Amino acid sequence: MVNAARYYPQLLSIMGSTLRFLPTFAAMRQLLVEGYVGEVQVCDVRVYGPSLLDQSYGWTCEDLMGGGGLHTVGSAIIDLLSYLTGTRAQRVHGLLRTFVQQNDTIRGIRRVTSDDFCFFQMLMGPCSSGVCCTVTLNFNMPGSFLHEVMVVGSAGRLVARGTELYGQRNNSKSEELLLGDGDWAGPDAKDIPLPHLRGLGAMVKALRQSFQAHQERRLWARGPVATAPTFEDGLYIQTVVEAIKRSSCSGEWECVEVMSKEPDPNHNLCEALQRNKN
Amino acid sequence: MVNAARYYPQLLSIMGSTLRFLPTFAAMRQLLVEGYVGEVQVCDVRVYGPSLLDQSYGWTCEDLMGGGGLHTVGSAIIDLLSYLTGTRAQRVHGLLRTFVQQNDTIRGIRRVTSDDFCFFQMLMGPCSSGVCCTVTLNFNMPGSFLHEVMVVGSAGRLVARGTELYGQRNNSKSEELLLGDGDWAGPDAKDIPLPHLRGLGAMVKALRQSFQAHQERRLWARGPVATAPTFEDGLYIQTVVEAIKRSSCSGEWECVEVMSKEPDPNHNLCEALQRNKN
Repeated sequence: MVNAARYYPQLLSIMGSTLRFLPTFAAMRQLLVEGYVGEVQVCDVRVYGPSLLDQSYGWTCEDLMGGGGLHTVGSAIIDLLSYLTGTRAQRVHGLLRTFVQQNDTIRGIRRVTSDDFCFFQMLMGPCSSGVCCTVTLNFNMPGSFLHEVMVVGSAGRLVARGTELYGQRNNSKSEELLLGDGDWAGPDAKDIPLPHLRGLGAMVKALRQSFQAHQERRLWARGPVATAPTFEDGLYIQTVVEAIKRSSCSGEWECVEVMSKEPDPNHNLCEALQRNKN
Repeated sequence: MVNAARYYPQLLSIMGSTLRFLPTFAAMRQLLVEGYVGEVQVCDVRVYGPSLLDQSYGWTCEDLMGGGGLHTVGSAIIDLLSYLTGTRAQRVHGLLRTFVQQNDTIRGIRRVTSDDFCFFQMLMGPCSSGVCCTVTLNFNMPGSFLHEVMVVGSAGRLVARGTELYGQRNNSKSEELLLGDGDWAGPDAKDIPLPHLRGLGAMVKALRQSFQAHQERRLWARGPVATAPTFEDGLYIQTVVEAIKRSSCSGEWECVEVMSKEPDPNHNLCEALQRNKN
């Protein structure tokens, strides 16, 4: 898919990242580039909320089908942190847990295999002066929702709480509100957290602008969707997710090595057959 | 020292743990025992604040002399979490960083070696049904102080923010204040965070009560200081701290194995000589 997207650059191919389009994170990135926090040292992300499982058994319960906190929310955070810091994860360490393996509707012989608690660390950029990222995702907290992204640097810090952006410089005595909640004209969707809902709205708006710029809407303008993650970014995100899962099994730091050439499908088939034999 | 304390039980030997004596954590432990959160799954602790370094160069700058976030604050948190959960860490994983190695007063050939950012994870209790603890200590945040201890369980959660205790059960829609700030009659000390200052006050009060119970104050009553950590607990804390430091070097999970017999001093001397040779 990455190769196909490269081959047809006139076709729009972006990942559906909602958080990059949220004004909060666009402003955060701008302030980071302008040096508000100085040299970035630590990023700390926490997302807490109720269970991600569907009412009945389905893909959300299965790790292999893309369910769980790491796949659903973690991948958006991995993308966001590389967008904010402008670097990529070199090494990761993770811990996945499924605390609730059965509930009122998923029981009997069925068990949830997707994670409801996920913690991972990423070391970004060059080893000597890298950024430490810690991400905690906990979906065993019904009745609450918290979405906090904090970036701490040598000269100050920025914190996005939900869709609001706060900042404090080291020489200042208190936090300042840098970007308020604004007016949300869109619909209220109970199931989608506000940062993702608003980000989605902003992304759709950007897509409209991108196509409206051209007659008959058969071409698109790069400008409005310039910040969107590419398929290359998508491959990077997937590679980090896989490395975190590997680390949770091995207990060790895992290197993030993004695939640079297309895998041999025959080789994969052989491996799968081998695995089945063992 | 542990053996000496065991040998003279009539002499009072407790560790100076201030947090166990803080009413907030005494109430938290009580609620955990009563099953407020159900089965404990995750503990999440965050302590953020300004630099722990002294104005001039001294022990606070040196890791080997006991400086840094892990030694100063981390050890109190390790003790607190074993007090709250009633279990001990089996395996730990840690990451220590010194982001600020030189400042206005510590410069030239001198460098800070103690950590100003410390992150560690502890797996407590039996492997199959253990508790995951994540602890983030960041002392690169001048102008702010945050001390948050959260315990998430199968039926609800408890959060101590500073000296206040909040709770929410899974079937409840909002958080409730379980223990307010109360009246603090003691002096205000700018350099000591409120939870530690108040805990210290409570500990000194408990010591007074313990000795006042007896004539001439030459004996002491166990009751008021029953919750204080013993020297055995101190050895456990030190063992966890060492394991976290080992893990930060190795990058791997390290087992916590508390020493059960006195080390041979000659053996240690030999090792030290060996190290000097290399």
